[in-house]
Amino acid sequence: MQLEEQMIDWRRDFHRFPEQGFLEIRTASIVASILEPLGFDLQLGKEVMKEDECMGKPDAAKTKAHVTWAIENGAVERFLPYFEEGFTGIVATLDTKRPGPTVTFRVDMDALPILEADTADHTPASFGFRSTADGSMHACGHDAHTSIGLGLATLLAEKQEELNGVIKLIFQPAEEGTRGAKAMARAGVVDDTDYFIASHIGTGVPQHHFVAANNGFLATTKLNISFTGKAAHAGGEPEAGKNALLAAASAALNMHAICRHSGGDSRINVGELHAGSGRNIIPNHATLVAETRGETSDVNNYMKEQVENIVKGAAQMYGIDYSIETAGEAVSCKCSDDLAKRLADIAKHHAFIQHVDVTSEANAGSEDATYFLEAVQQRGGQATYCIFGTELAAGHHHECFDINEDALLPAAEILFAAAKELSRTE
Amino acid sequence: MQLEEQMIDWRRDFHRFPEQGFLEIRTASIVASILEPLGFDLQLGKEVMKEDECMGKPDAAKTKAHVTWAIENGAVERFLPYFEEGFTGIVATLDTKRPGPTVTFRVDMDALPILEADTADHTPASFGFRSTADGSMHACGHDAHTSIGLGLATLLAEKQEELNGVIKLIFQPAEEGTRGAKAMARAGVVDDTDYFIASHIGTGVPQHHFVAANNGFLATTKLNISFTGKAAHAGGEPEAGKNALLAAASAALNMHAICRHSGGDSRINVGELHAGSGRNIIPNHATLVAETRGETSDVNNYMKEQVENIVKGAAQMYGIDYSIETAGEAVSCKCSDDLAKRLADIAKHHAFIQHVDVTSEANAGSEDATYFLEAVQQRGGQATYCIFGTELAAGHHHECFDINEDALLPAAEILFAAAKELSRTE
Amino acid sequence: MQLEEQMIDWRRDFHRFPEQGFLEIRTASIVASILEPLGFDLQLGKEVMKEDECMGKPDAAKTKAHVTWAIENGAVERFLPYFEEGFTGIVATLDTKRPGPTVTFRVDMDALPILEADTADHTPASFGFRSTADGSMHACGHDAHTSIGLGLATLLAEKQEELNGVIKLIFQPAEEGTRGAKAMARAGVVDDTDYFIASHIGTGVPQHHFVAANNGFLATTKLNISFTGKAAHAGGEPEAGKNALLAAASAALNMHAICRHSGGDSRINVGELHAGSGRNIIPNHATLVAETRGETSDVNNYMKEQVENIVKGAAQMYGIDYSIETAGEAVSCKCSDDLAKRLADIAKHHAFIQHVDVTSEANAGSEDATYFLEAVQQRGGQATYCIFGTELAAGHHHECFDINEDALLPAAEILFAAAKELSRTE
Amino acid sequence: MQLEEQMIDWRRDFHRFPEQGFLEIRTASIVASILEPLGFDLQLGKEVMKEDECMGKPDAAKTKAHVTWAIENGAVERFLPYFEEGFTGIVATLDTKRPGPTVTFRVDMDALPILEADTADHTPASFGFRSTADGSMHACGHDAHTSIGLGLATLLAEKQEELNGVIKLIFQPAEEGTRGAKAMARAGVVDDTDYFIASHIGTGVPQHHFVAANNGFLATTKLNISFTGKAAHAGGEPEAGKNALLAAASAALNMHAICRHSGGDSRINVGELHAGSGRNIIPNHATLVAETRGETSDVNNYMKEQVENIVKGAAQMYGIDYSIETAGEAVSCKCSDDLAKRLADIAKHHAFIQHVDVTSEANAGSEDATYFLEAVQQRGGQATYCIFGTELAAGHHHECFDINEDALLPAAEILFAAAKELSRTE
Repeated sequence: MQLEEQMIDWRRDFHRFPEQGFLEIRTASIVASILEPLGFDLQLGKEVMKEDECMGKPDAAKTKAHVTWAIENGAVERFLPYFEEGFTGIVATLDTKRPGPTVTFRVDMDALPILEADTADHTPASFGFRSTADGSMHACGHDAHTSIGLGLATLLAEKQEELNGVIKLIFQPAEEGTRGAKAMARAGVVDDTDYFIASHIGTGVPQHHFVAANNGFLATTKLNISFTGKAAHAGGEPEAGKNALLAAASAALNMHAICRHSGGDSRINVGELHAGSGRNIIPNHATLVAETRGETSDVNNYMKEQVENIVKGAAQMYGIDYSIETAGEAVSCKCSDDLAKRLADIAKHHAFIQHVDVTSEANAGSEDATYFLEAVQQRGGQATYCIFGTELAAGHHHECFDINEDALLPAAEILFAAAKELSRTE
Repeated sequence: MQLEEQMIDWRRDFHRFPEQGFLEIRTASIVASILEPLGFDLQLGKEVMKEDECMGKPDAAKTKAHVTWAIENGAVERFLPYFEEGFTGIVATLDTKRPGPTVTFRVDMDALPILEADTADHTPASFGFRSTADGSMHACGHDAHTSIGLGLATLLAEKQEELNGVIKLIFQPAEEGTRGAKAMARAGVVDDTDYFIASHIGTGVPQHHFVAANNGFLATTKLNISFTGKAAHAGGEPEAGKNALLAAASAALNMHAICRHSGGDSRINVGELHAGSGRNIIPNHATLVAETRGETSDVNNYMKEQVENIVKGAAQMYGIDYSIETAGEAVSCKCSDDLAKRLADIAKHHAFIQHVDVTSEANAGSEDATYFLEAVQQRGGQATYCIFGTELAAGHHHECFDINEDALLPAAEILFAAAKELSRTE
Repeated sequence: MQLEEQMIDWRRDFHRFPEQGFLEIRTASIVASILEPLGFDLQLGKEVMKEDECMGKPDAAKTKAHVTWAIENGAVERFLPYFEEGFTGIVATLDTKRPGPTVTFRVDMDALPILEADTADHTPASFGFRSTADGSMHACGHDAHTSIGLGLATLLAEKQEELNGVIKLIFQPAEEGTRGAKAMARAGVVDDTDYFIASHIGTGVPQHHFVAANNGFLATTKLNISFTGKAAHAGGEPEAGKNALLAAASAALNMHAICRHSGGDSRINVGELHAGSGRNIIPNHATLVAETRGETSDVNNYMKEQVENIVKGAAQMYGIDYSIETAGEAVSCKCSDDLAKRLADIAKHHAFIQHVDVTSEANAGSEDATYFLEAVQQRGGQATYCIFGTELAAGHHHECFDINEDALLPAAEILFAAAKELSRTE
Repeated sequence: MQLEEQMIDWRRDFHRFPEQGFLEIRTASIVASILEPLGFDLQLGKEVMKEDECMGKPDAAKTKAHVTWAIENGAVERFLPYFEEGFTGIVATLDTKRPGPTVTFRVDMDALPILEADTADHTPASFGFRSTADGSMHACGHDAHTSIGLGLATLLAEKQEELNGVIKLIFQPAEEGTRGAKAMARAGVVDDTDYFIASHIGTGVPQHHFVAANNGFLATTKLNISFTGKAAHAGGEPEAGKNALLAAASAALNMHAICRHSGGDSRINVGELHAGSGRNIIPNHATLVAETRGETSDVNNYMKEQVENIVKGAAQMYGIDYSIETAGEAVSCKCSDDLAKRLADIAKHHAFIQHVDVTSEANAGSEDATYFLEAVQQRGGQATYCIFGTELAAGHHHECFDINEDALLPAAEILFAAAKELSRTE
């Protein structure tokens, strides 16, 4: 089978069996089973993930239930010991034994909590690779990313004589909610890296276009906040209660009232608030699902600190307890100009590419690959985040999201070309 | 079978098969099937309930599903046509054809949304009459009330020669949440009544005690409030959203800040607040489950008006829509002194009763029987709300709630004695 | 001069020269100068006031400025050393040297911050005794109370042969805002008292009526709250500020949202909020002038504790400092039934009195004489708060307030009769 | 006298007699008296100001009182009829009668409500030209701007043979608070203008530096908001009140919680909140002094609309009235690139200038000259806002603010050079 067909097959297989963050057990086992025979040295699971830096990870019961599903749906069982607790990261290393720099690529593997469309005009449905896991969907293209990572691996293995130094591939879990990268970065997986390239498909960049450096990511923190008060009968003895709902309402209002920052754009959202257990009971529990963002990590940290002050203050107001859990986090980034220019030049020479932007400042939400960029740059390396344009059937995170698979092979080839050129840097 | 045993059997049967408000389909059909052969003239369902005054009634789908359950669990099918839409009220009339006043008694039939305890020390569990409907429970004694109503009916039928005038029995649905009485009162079921007695068991009054008039009910309004805004991506284009969560938070805070009233005690509770659909989405929907109370109907109406102003204002603040549904309501009441004294005298002569209070001002929450009291008093009749003491295993609305069944027969006998004496009033 | 004329003269003199709380320097010096020649043993100023329990006392500069005014307007200079720092309480003792109980009477002396009406139909204006101190006015009748106290003293002195035991008169400063009584009670001035009577004129009780025991006082706490944040330019660097205005706004809202108490009526009012110094400056300062009340001291303490939690929480939310000053306080009270009945009997025999109520539960605001009642009752004595009805030209605290002076002499005579009878109690 | 000395004299005179917005009566009369003999055609007061577009204008009493001050301090009386109502704008026109474009310059004249420093190291104090009007101060350099305008006028008059077309000078009142420009722009004073240059001194740009185009102005709206409720006694009958303080607190909180805008930076500040009249009175009045800002006028308009919704909603919540007054407003602007480049070139050739920036995006607060830029650009003309660097003794709006007067003459000369070159544009 030709690589292009193979990549499409991979992508469609992952699309049929989407797995959400820290549950990419089937996916990771298949990725590992493909990389191994290609000659990569594999590090799996906890070897490449700092356990206590995993954010918003499902609990053991949910993970265990998912293992069953994964096995039933084709997980490669000999890799399960590495992944079955939900630490689903992979680092695959190809050491040419020739002198040269370390060049690292990162793709992500997780799906979203979305029920996929089932209409005739939705290609995955009509072509038979719609999600089989109701409520989970690859609606952001990470199925394609995983496929591109495997295509790149195939090319690297086939043509390793053209390379120098060390090439590393990171298959990251739980990018959605910006939950997984930090655990891998803190585990040191890029601490040897001289050149780092993360990539995404789509994001509004048209088919045949390429952006070598996307700088528009906002730093972000995802916060799960809870207040615990005391229930009481609202008619009989209301003063015996401690009202968690009002603490939450007051926190939500004051969080949105956090002062704007002159250092750059900021965002705050209390996306969900759930409180109380009955009409005539003083509410003794409340939860808020929130996020902050900042144009820079400083601005985001400012937002986060204000949230902490406000939540603590709201709990104090009502004499109740609170907890704040960080359920996801990402920093901001500034891609390395030199690397961006080199990558832009490489992409220009690929026949599929008709237009190249060296850099884009377009706001593209948040991304936790920024942890890798930050770590590489802090040790003196160069790092960038590039975007492969593709045609989208609907926007990211939409139930009808779909990509044009023509973009898959060129993406793998451009990344291979980058590996080749960068690894020969003296 | 002796009446006492029969009443215990009835009570335990209703306890096993609890039905929540406007779903008392099995219960009502059995009640009707018992009353009919006793010679009562029955008016059922919509005949005795004003449809559009039923508050917080389950929707058609839920009602239909419950009919199936009711049939499977022993509902008397020939009465289903009257009750199957959830209009489950019954008025049973015994006309002596002798001159005399109309004396009306009211009991309620509905259960609560509580999962009953299943421990060895919980009598219904150990004696085999624990609720078979998970999540529904007679935890307020309405099973006993229905049984008392049937016991009273039996005595009235047996001894109708001792009576004059007209005796009416009201079996009311949906007292919990104060949702059902208004629809029956507005249908005119007490418009002919000269003497009215509603009764409750327990409420902290000890076994062998009797309270002839309880005045401590607070007027109340149950409100379901919803806000509908507009969703938007909280990072990308937050200003395109219209935030229903913040409107709800602001409404909740300001509702609790409604000014105290010098005319009497008031209460406000936002018991539940649910808003939003995801961390990074501007919340476009929010619901509040709330209630107001007042020592008088005037105070409660003041609270309700402020709530309406606040909700409207909060919607205006965020440029969104809102709705306010009245999901229950009750007025305050003042029992008729003369009737209370006569009833107290009657109770004193019953061997089971060791202590009688003519009136109690103890705050006993809210009750929609007050609509009947109000209607009877407005037409010049006398009305009271009496309490039969009993031993409680745990407080009302507790998962271990249970009564001492010794109180059942005496309650029916005292009410019969009242019927006898009052019906002979010239 | 007859006592009646003398009392009217006194009252009008005090009315012309009203002095607010802790500034009754002229008033107290004149009171002392009248009591001394009557043979009373005087304790003055700090002897009878615990300095650090004086609440909301004006600062030294304001007090000093007022001393000048007092001297210019007829203060008796030889008493100034006792009062010139603003400790203006007086206890006057008449010891009969005969066995018998200690009977204590209390009147208050301070005026209100109100600009008195200057219209032809306002008697003080047309009769030439309108306030000469713009912005201060005896609009609550304390001028009359002081006059009654002096009238009583005159009678006691003249007829001391009719008395037994010890008679004490307390002339209290700063009743308005409930600021002065606690300092005197804590100084122990009623620690020897067997019978205690405080009195008020008016309050809606009609001329010729008398209430022997008023129980309707709410416990209260007056609070001055301030928040101190940090200023910053609202356009250039808003995040450098710490917003005291928003902390105050949040505190005010949440204070009003304090849960109702089932133990009795409560009140909360943020009467004033002042914050900020300019449109484009993040506000660095905010002050709230607030009060809580409760039907019982327990309820008021509950309210006060919630306020403290809320203010602390609001400061925490915005990372700022706060302070809470108690600017006044009063407890609730329950008059002694026996004393009330005896006093009612005494009043009935006075020719001026046509109607007597032993007790009244009418809400009459707050009063700090309750500290004396509490102290006397705690040591086993009896205490009451009585009201002498009078005709009012306008309500208390109104710029047109005025009394009917016919009520003055009867009040002094009834109190004397009480002193006589109570002092003879064995 | 040489022009340089003259300009310093003018500047010091204006500095000694500072006049706040719409009160520049002395200043304007002196400006007019200087321009007239130079041969300019003058349009004064209401001729060049749309009355109802003047924002935040002092009331008639304040204006009248200031006229007296102005006369006492050297106002040129023959011009008072034009200015005495506070419409203090001037447009001076020099028509060369030769073909050519219309070139317009704008300076501003008003002072700030600041008490000037009186220390030895503050040059205006030690050199004897400190403000004589306590509480008013030229702390932003508008005294220098007026002097530069007069210096430019002098050069234009002297060298008018070197010019073509029409040259116009605008002396604008009330720039502080962005209150005066709109009224002049709406009166059409730049509707004939082909080239427009506004200028400022300082703002952090160093001595010998020049910025030809400053784009960093935020659009802004200054809002005075008031709520009117109903007073009531907070203890006796609190429910009779309508609480304006809580409406204001709720409005303030929700205004700060207005959602961030993805279209650019925004700002909101409630700089002052004053509410209530006494501790025990339900507050019946509240005022907020607020401002919004936006990186673009669209963003500012969005902020302003949200404020209006929130204020209306808060009033609705509490059943009270409200008013919103626009007390100042400015739009955003984008300087014309071509004009900026030409002006930069001109400035480069002046000996005093050592460094030129064509454009600056530095946030420089808000400026209502933007109304003129907008109007000129909308009719097809070119417009820019330039900055003359100078040494500052302290920042703008600081009580020790002072400039280096060496920058005055070069500024006038550069503007003259611009007039010369631009007027010769074909």
